[in-house]
Formats: sequence, structure tokens, C-alpha cells
Amino acid sequence: MVKGNFYFNKLKRPYIFPIIEQKLSEVKLLYPDVDIINMGIGDIALPLAPSISKAITLAVEEMKEPFSLYGYGPSEGYSFLREAIKENSYKDLPVTSDEVFISDGINTDIVNILDLFHNSCSVAIPNPAYPAYLDSNILDGRHNRIYVMPCTKETGFVPENPSSHCDIIYLCSPHNPTGVAMTRDQLKKFIDYAIKENSIILFDNAYDAFVTSKDVPQSIYEIPGAEKVAIEFKSFSKSAGFTGLRCSYLILPKGIQVEIHKKKHSLHALWKKRQSIKFNGVSYPIQRGAAATFSPLGKKETKDQVQFYLSQARQLKEGLEKAGQICYGGIDSPYIWWQTPKGTSSWEFFDLLLHKCQIIAIPGCGFGKYGEGYVRLSGFSLQKKTTKALERIQQLV
Amino acid sequence: MVKGNFYFNKLKRPYIFPIIEQKLSEVKLLYPDVDIINMGIGDIALPLAPSISKAITLAVEEMKEPFSLYGYGPSEGYSFLREAIKENSYKDLPVTSDEVFISDGINTDIVNILDLFHNSCSVAIPNPAYPAYLDSNILDGRHNRIYVMPCTKETGFVPENPSSHCDIIYLCSPHNPTGVAMTRDQLKKFIDYAIKENSIILFDNAYDAFVTSKDVPQSIYEIPGAEKVAIEFKSFSKSAGFTGLRCSYLILPKGIQVEIHKKKHSLHALWKKRQSIKFNGVSYPIQRGAAATFSPLGKKETKDQVQFYLSQARQLKEGLEKAGQICYGGIDSPYIWWQTPKGTSSWEFFDLLLHKCQIIAIPGCGFGKYGEGYVRLSGFSLQKKTTKALERIQQLV
Repeated sequence: MVKGNFYFNKLKRPYIFPIIEQKLSEVKLLYPDVDIINMGIGDIALPLAPSISKAITLAVEEMKEPFSLYGYGPSEGYSFLREAIKENSYKDLPVTSDEVFISDGINTDIVNILDLFHNSCSVAIPNPAYPAYLDSNILDGRHNRIYVMPCTKETGFVPENPSSHCDIIYLCSPHNPTGVAMTRDQLKKFIDYAIKENSIILFDNAYDAFVTSKDVPQSIYEIPGAEKVAIEFKSFSKSAGFTGLRCSYLILPKGIQVEIHKKKHSLHALWKKRQSIKFNGVSYPIQRGAAATFSPLGKKETKDQVQFYLSQARQLKEGLEKAGQICYGGIDSPYIWWQTPKGTSSWEFFDLLLHKCQIIAIPGCGFGKYGEGYVRLSGFSLQKKTTKALERIQQLV
Repeated sequence: MVKGNFYFNKLKRPYIFPIIEQKLSEVKLLYPDVDIINMGIGDIALPLAPSISKAITLAVEEMKEPFSLYGYGPSEGYSFLREAIKENSYKDLPVTSDEVFISDGINTDIVNILDLFHNSCSVAIPNPAYPAYLDSNILDGRHNRIYVMPCTKETGFVPENPSSHCDIIYLCSPHNPTGVAMTRDQLKKFIDYAIKENSIILFDNAYDAFVTSKDVPQSIYEIPGAEKVAIEFKSFSKSAGFTGLRCSYLILPKGIQVEIHKKKHSLHALWKKRQSIKFNGVSYPIQRGAAATFSPLGKKETKDQVQFYLSQARQLKEGLEKAGQICYGGIDSPYIWWQTPKGTSSWEFFDLLLHKCQIIAIPGCGFGKYGEGYVRLSGFSLQKKTTKALERIQQLV
């Protein structure tokens, strides 16, 4: 019989979403008439901005015409989008448009980037964190080479430099799930570490649009030297409501190098090669939609959406604090990291919220063991829903 | 320094498209006024069918409304599309809708599927063939485990069963680049081999819509037993003009198993796990567009397009044969596999066609060493272009 990838056996994490679904259907049987409010979800709540839908529709119209049809596009994305990203998001930063690679999602890129590295690389991963960081490394056989960076109350919910050498370091700021962002100084410590240790940082920057604090950078390349060691992953998902449309990108600076058989190779060149073999590019109309987020109207519409989500997060946070609860995040992020009361476990508190308030939160332990004792709430919510959720919570606690 | 994936060094194939681009720009300098005809390209020539563009536009309109917005969809695709595929393409075949997984391209799927297999697996690959089959296996460290299946004049341009055991077998029929399709009997030999040897077949069926011969199956599952050993990869790219939109799917039957540490595992379950970790699904409006290809109008429009491409391929073939040339394919495929005259090499003949006729073909050697001595022409062409190309060729030979 054909041998499967052995490392599937090393995936130990319980997959929380089927458990949530199961618990939800039980509650729906118990209270069939009650309105269940999902406050956990990391997905958009507002409809697509008109400027984006218009751009996609126009692009589809173009494709109907014999002289403006678009077939296979460049694997790395159309230059109209790569240049718009450079001009708008990296204007005064050391990034060129040919260091921008368009893709269908950060999730896709942040797992595919591992194709470039040797299996023997050691990897530092924050905990709690987005599950794909760990799982994709396990599937590549690095389960014994994982260094855990706890993000706890003691560390201010940001990771600290590894105490030993690590080849690859994942960072996510503003962080999912804690909602806490790293300051310039905190990020600089990692850049200094990576330069000293010859490491590479994978910087998941999905939530840059939510940054409001002055000392939090919106791109890692605001930190001098980052262009020598850091790959930045960004998305239109949360900043412009693209979770259902699928468009993202990464920045891979040309100066980053790896070693293959004692020779130096440009990681940029390897990624270009990898993508040319394995990827045929993102849908043309979707790339046009992404480019429309940089039009004056697109900028306004998407900024308004982000501000709205931030206002929901702020209300949640203030409401919880007024009710005597302890919670974090919600300032530079749509996420609230709510410490469970009286030392209950994440799942116990999840059950309590579901049964007493008919509210769904995400158990923190689903993001790693240092997420135990927390649940994640999200500001991706409509006003009515936020208000109702807070009313129910205030009655409970 | 961080160690890169060593196997990038094992990629030996010269990448032909930059060479073609270079030669093309030289010719444009030499003959600035001449109209160069690209007859090599495997990309669509006709604009998007109205029923598809309408469906995409409607889906984008939906996303603008608060009560019909679509965020993250299921990683495996929406059930409206999975069910439409089952109903329309696999009605009487042993395939269920939950064995259909939607993706953004066969290229993506056929490289990602390798995540499920152990590096020690031996792999049989036709030669010539689509380059990603070989390159993705090399990047996974299987460069020493490749069994080459020549597709030459002697084999009728179809592969023959490996003479020794191979774990994984790639087949593509109708074949790219030769344009020759495998008959039911020829495919059955491979199914029998795979059942006997406990192998798994990766069946690239990108060109099923072009099948016209009665003894050529449109799906591998028409062969009894295939559902135990074969994964079928299909796409809307060539059948419905989706090369620029990006939508495809694979069929992974639940009965296929692999062994991990002496235990049997369902490959379907592993793929589902893999996709849930690594992929967030295809753009919602694009999936709606794909589903529209199964509407009565969508079927008619896309069938007309395929018939048109087939008519171009037929004209090319007949024209070449009338000029005394030897060529294959073009019956169940948009591709013509043209044997270079007088034993010239693929590149020599490419140069001749470019300089004397200002026609671009694809050198067969770009698809593997058994493609040497051929060039690929394509029926993805407009009538005027096909006619002009034939006129120029007839003057040359």
C-alpha cells in the first residue's frame, strides 16, 4: 500500500470548530426559540464596499469582450495591483513592487512559504496563535523543532525573543487571538535577534488596518533592518472585507538569503520559482477589486468599515470592564481576549456563555495551551448584536 | 544562515518560457512591422460566456447586501457547486458530492496532493508532460524515485504500464502536450495495474470537454474499479474559459487508502484535514460563475466555445497534413503535436517558424526529453489567426 505522510499522525491539536458546532446544535435543541449570537467569529459582518463590487463587475465585463479578455495572468499577480500596493502601503519603505507577490490568502502563503526551507530548520511560534503556523510545520516534519513563545499576562501577551537559536520565527501583530499589538521597540528586539542569529521572521500582518496606537508600526519594514530578515504577509480580508473574495499578498525582500549546500540563494528567487511551478495566479476580477481598495472612494469605504469594527470592539471591551471583567486587546485589533472569571477553563466558560447567554465565543485553548483560561470575542459584529450580547453578559456576571 | 530546501538544486529543466520571450523580442527588433502569431499558447482565445459573467456579477451584487454577504466559505467549496458537479459530470458514476473538492486550479491541486504522500513513494510520470508533475516531486525530494513513461510515436503517444512497481502514477488524457487521448482499454490497463500493485493514479483530466471519440472516456470513473485507485483532477479553465477566473476541482473517492505506520488511513480524510489547515476556499463569485456553466444556457455557450476550438485544431491538422507534414492530436484535444520536418530539433524548428513564418510554437522538449523533435500548436485561436498561420506555414514547407 502507498505510504502516506507520516506526520499527519503528529497533529495532536483537537480541532475546536466541530466541537463548537456539536455544542451549538445541542443548545438549539434545548432552546429552539432563542436567538444565538455568534461573537467569536473572525469573519466580516458588513457587506462589500460599492467601489470594490463595481471594480469586480467592470473587470468581468472586460472579460466578455474579445479585445479585453484575460486568460492566465502572471503567477505573482498583475503589476497594476503590485504597484498600487507599493504606492499606497509601502510608499516610503524599502520595498519595491516586484517584491510584492499576490495570492489568494495569507493562510495559503504562510503554509506554502515552508516549501523554501529545509526540514531541519528550528521554528519559534507564539502560543496562543493561528493554528496553521504549527500544523503546517508538523506536516513538514518539524514537530521536534518547535520553540514555543508564550503570550501570556506575564509577557503582556506579546512573545519574547527565544532564549536559544531559532531559524524561523512567526510573529503576528496585532496578534490573533489576543488582540494585543507589538510596539516598535518590541518588534525591534526581534529584528535585532534575527539579524544577530541569521534567522528569518514570518510576520503575519493581517490586522494592520486596525492599528490605532502611535507606537505600533503598520508594517514591519518601518523597523530599520527588517528588510534583511522579514517576510510580511498581508491581506485584503479584514481590511477590505475580502474573506469571501480571497486576495492577499506577501512582501519578500530581495536581500533575504538562505543556504543550500553551502551556497547562498536569494529567497525571493526561490519563491518566484516555487510560485511559477505551483501557482497560476489570482482571479483577474478579484485583483481588480483589490486594486479598487486604493482608490479614493475605496480607501474611504474600507476605512469606515474598519472604524466600525473597532468601535464594536471598543464597546465590547468597555462593557465587559464595566461589568468587572478582565479583558485585553480591542484597541489595535477587532479581537477581545477575555480572561475567564474565577479560573474556569476556556471550555467551561464557553459552555456557560452558550447556555446562560446564548453567546458563542471561541475557547482560547483552541489556539494553544497558553490560550487556556481565555475566550476570544470579536468586533466583527453589527451594532444591534453587540448591544444585545453585552446586555446578556451584564445579566450573567 | 537558515537552510533552504536542498531540492531546488535538483530542478534541472530549462525553463522554456523566458527563452521564448527572449527570442520573441529579438525577432520583434528584426521585423518590427510583422504580425507575430502565437499558436503555441494553451490559453483561451474567446471572451467569457455571458451566462458566466452574469452569474459572477449577480454574486458580487449579493455580497453588497447585508443579508446576503458571503465571508469565509467552506474550504472544500460550496455545496451548490459540488452538487452541480456531481449531477452534471458524474451522474451515473460512483462519485458523491462530498468527494468533490473545489480549488483554484488543477496546477494547485496536483502539486498540493503530494502533501499526503511519504517522500519515499516512487512516482511514474509520462514524458513529455505538464512540467509541474515532475518539478513538484523533485521539490519534495523524490528526484531519485521517478519512473519515466515515454509517450512517443512507438507507444502511440500514450504511456505504457510501468514494468516495475510504482506507488503513484500520473496520467493525463487527453494528453498535454501531445493532444492524444487514451482509450477505455488503455486506461483499464492502468486501473488493473494500480489495483494489482496497490498504487494510486493521479488523473489529470483538464481536457475532458474536448473528447469526441467514442472509445475515449470523459471520466476515469467510467472504468470499473477506478474509484478504488484514482483521483481525478478537473477544471473550468479549458472547458469554460476560466483560465483568468481560476476554478477547478478534484474527485477524491472515499475508498482510497494509504498506510501510515502500518495503519490504513482514508486519503479523503487526510485531504480534508490538509485543506482545512492550508486552504480557505475559492472566491464565492467565482464559484457561482462555475456553477453557471451547468445551467442550460451555460452548457450551450461553453460547448460552443469548445467546438470552436476543436474546429480550429482540426483545420490546423488538416492544413498541416495537406502540406505534407506529420502531426498528431487535435481530435480529442485542442493541441496538435507536430513532428519537426527532416529531424530538426524542437528549438531549431521553433526558430525556423519564428523567423520564416513569424509563428510561435512551443518546443516539445520543454515538456521532457521525449518531446524532442516536436512542437505543440494549439487550437485556442481565432479563425483569422488560424487561417493566416496556415497560409504562412504552407509557403514555408
